[in-house]
Amino acid sequence: MKTLITNGLLLTMNDSFDVFDKGFILFDEGRIEQLGQMADCPDAAASWQVLDADGDIIMPGFINTHCHLGMIPFRSLADDVPDRLRKYLFPLEQHMTAALAAQSARYAVCELLLAGTTTVCDMYYFEDEIAAVCDEMGIRAFLGETIIDMPTCDAKDADEALVYADAFIQKWQAHGRITPVIAPHATNTVKKDTLLKIKQLSQRSNTPVTMHVSEMDYEMAYFSETYGQTPIAFLDDIGLLEQPFILAHGIFIQESDISLLQKRQVGVAHCIGANTKSAKGVAPIPQLLAGGVAVGLGTDGPSSGNTLDHFTQMKLVANFHKTRWQDRALFPARDIVRLATIGGAEVLGMAAVTGSLEAGKKADVIQIDTKSAAMFPMFDPYSVLVYSAGPHDVRNTWVDGRQLVRDKQLIKADLFSIRKKLDGEMTEFKLAVERINNA
Amino acid sequence: MKTLITNGLLLTMNDSFDVFDKGFILFDEGRIEQLGQMADCPDAAASWQVLDADGDIIMPGFINTHCHLGMIPFRSLADDVPDRLRKYLFPLEQHMTAALAAQSARYAVCELLLAGTTTVCDMYYFEDEIAAVCDEMGIRAFLGETIIDMPTCDAKDADEALVYADAFIQKWQAHGRITPVIAPHATNTVKKDTLLKIKQLSQRSNTPVTMHVSEMDYEMAYFSETYGQTPIAFLDDIGLLEQPFILAHGIFIQESDISLLQKRQVGVAHCIGANTKSAKGVAPIPQLLAGGVAVGLGTDGPSSGNTLDHFTQMKLVANFHKTRWQDRALFPARDIVRLATIGGAEVLGMAAVTGSLEAGKKADVIQIDTKSAAMFPMFDPYSVLVYSAGPHDVRNTWVDGRQLVRDKQLIKADLFSIRKKLDGEMTEFKLAVERINNA
Repeated sequence: MKTLITNGLLLTMNDSFDVFDKGFILFDEGRIEQLGQMADCPDAAASWQVLDADGDIIMPGFINTHCHLGMIPFRSLADDVPDRLRKYLFPLEQHMTAALAAQSARYAVCELLLAGTTTVCDMYYFEDEIAAVCDEMGIRAFLGETIIDMPTCDAKDADEALVYADAFIQKWQAHGRITPVIAPHATNTVKKDTLLKIKQLSQRSNTPVTMHVSEMDYEMAYFSETYGQTPIAFLDDIGLLEQPFILAHGIFIQESDISLLQKRQVGVAHCIGANTKSAKGVAPIPQLLAGGVAVGLGTDGPSSGNTLDHFTQMKLVANFHKTRWQDRALFPARDIVRLATIGGAEVLGMAAVTGSLEAGKKADVIQIDTKSAAMFPMFDPYSVLVYSAGPHDVRNTWVDGRQLVRDKQLIKADLFSIRKKLDGEMTEFKLAVERINNA
Repeated sequence: MKTLITNGLLLTMNDSFDVFDKGFILFDEGRIEQLGQMADCPDAAASWQVLDADGDIIMPGFINTHCHLGMIPFRSLADDVPDRLRKYLFPLEQHMTAALAAQSARYAVCELLLAGTTTVCDMYYFEDEIAAVCDEMGIRAFLGETIIDMPTCDAKDADEALVYADAFIQKWQAHGRITPVIAPHATNTVKKDTLLKIKQLSQRSNTPVTMHVSEMDYEMAYFSETYGQTPIAFLDDIGLLEQPFILAHGIFIQESDISLLQKRQVGVAHCIGANTKSAKGVAPIPQLLAGGVAVGLGTDGPSSGNTLDHFTQMKLVANFHKTRWQDRALFPARDIVRLATIGGAEVLGMAAVTGSLEAGKKADVIQIDTKSAAMFPMFDPYSVLVYSAGPHDVRNTWVDGRQLVRDKQLIKADLFSIRKKLDGEMTEFKLAVERINNA
């Protein structure tokens, strides 16, 4: 069935940032067919679904370039504990089960779709189960099975995880909406030998790699002391950056790294919320963009960034970068919306497919209600999106032309019952939390 | 009529941060009578309104210690223009009328109440009209008539503004819910002579003073060069800090200022959103608190901070202070909720009256829906408030025991028609914006 949206304020996010003040967009289940001003709007056929946007903003769905869909159970837990990774996250992940990861992912995908995110790049465990959830829920997903040199909830060691990843890739590679990814955890938790095996698997299966890189101060110190180079230079030396590579965080990217990232066409997932909540710092994003590196936004997991919506991230990008580089003119709102949409598509190597409203691209489209108190007046719609809007303002969400959110409610899923089931799955997990709290 | 709320998660924000997991609160039109665990809940009389909170958070309303209610027309305008104050704000304020300021304030108060803010401290022009609006709308308000040494929309010079302020104070001083305030604009826009007259008026009428102080780098440079002292030391030298004083911004407060602020019991309105969006920096809040200075949160005006909700401010306080002082453990969520509530009451000299849920205090109470996707799980309710919640999660708002928001809708006002009327009042203002844009 074709969908025609009329009377929208269309932000195309194409190369020339075309805006149609009173615009229409027509899409099939799959691709965008036509868009423009209402004066050029075709007559609707009887079989089309026609929707009057009544001045709402129509724009490409948000693209979340770094997330951990299985980590909903960790949210609001130990937010202010300095070494939370080793004190809470790693120990609790021993209690992660396939059922809990899948139910967490189901809940997380609800949260993403309700917040207008149409594509997510995940890094977690039990990705086969998570892929089944994403398939069922209708979101576009890059799913990275984690490889780490320690026992995990779904593999006794990195070799077993590699076997899992190999099978996972073969199973899902032909799926139109789901892209398998290999996710070495971080430069300081995965050995060189393992990284070389990951490179081989990536080459052999033509699978992208995503990894936490240059995120920790101790990571930077270790590479400097051990190898006399940055983690990025090290990864390039072993050839891993020659694969399609989605670099998460990059807080401590050095000047010398930037040309290397540009040369290897590595995309950076900028997770400003998680990076600043954990007091780590602000990645050199203006410098990366000036150096021709693709940058998108990531929420990180729900325990690190707490919300999975890009509105929170966009606000933080504005305020943190203006302050960090002492320049109020930096990152006008339009450039931030770019990061949240087509910028993310570039990072995932999907700029020809999604991330903007253009004829021939996938119909990943959202509609933003502009009736909230904080969204008036609207001298600049980008400014309203960045500074005023929130996830509750997302009215409708389509992925691949299929509507998944209607009037701020999920169409195919019930958040309340999914939450209830997730809470039930968390019984063991909560006991483990209590044991750590009381230790 | 008495209101009894049952089955709430009560965050009292009292001195010992008492929490009632499954609690009740009983209040009259006016004051809180009783609160505690459900086991101690009194039987409801037939005349009481009884409301089952069903696990929602019940807490004191937010206190906004610095705002410009008349500035809704400026929102989303020229957000990224470096000298916006002189290029847009001052010239456009020449087009401000009493009717436009009042309608803007009406809209702003709707936005505040919908976001759970029960007390606001304003600084603007036409405060007599704004007071009438606040009286009608039911919010608790500190209203500061601006005095500045230049012609404004409601006075040809500072002396005329002082006459206005004097009459305004006399008219509204006896009102229970509205407190008149004198608002010298800033240290660099008001002359010493004028400040001395303000001090006299404040002394004579027992009226608090609020002012933009230590907000601008050029302000700091000017005082250093001209007087060899900080703006705060200067204000103290002329005796102005001996009056009840609400200091807005204070980004560049110096170490030497802190003991002075503590000695004079000056409260600081911390406007993290506006300060960082304008690339100015992060005020030394941990140092102020350690020095015994009262600190609350302010949204600043809708053109500087864009939203008037304290959820946005709380998130920014967490991430900015942790990052600025490189300490993840700094500002645990509970301390941030404290700033947004009782901390604000302390700044306004109202800690005995509002800011926490305690028997005998004014019934300024809000109820927060915890059903939004980002608000699960809830290992720590303060964390969920700071990192996950947003203005749309405010279900009910009471001021002085009178319900003003019910099920996320205003009871006595219609946001849509107020917006429409405000838009109509903005015709001249929009033409002036176009002239500046095209200049």
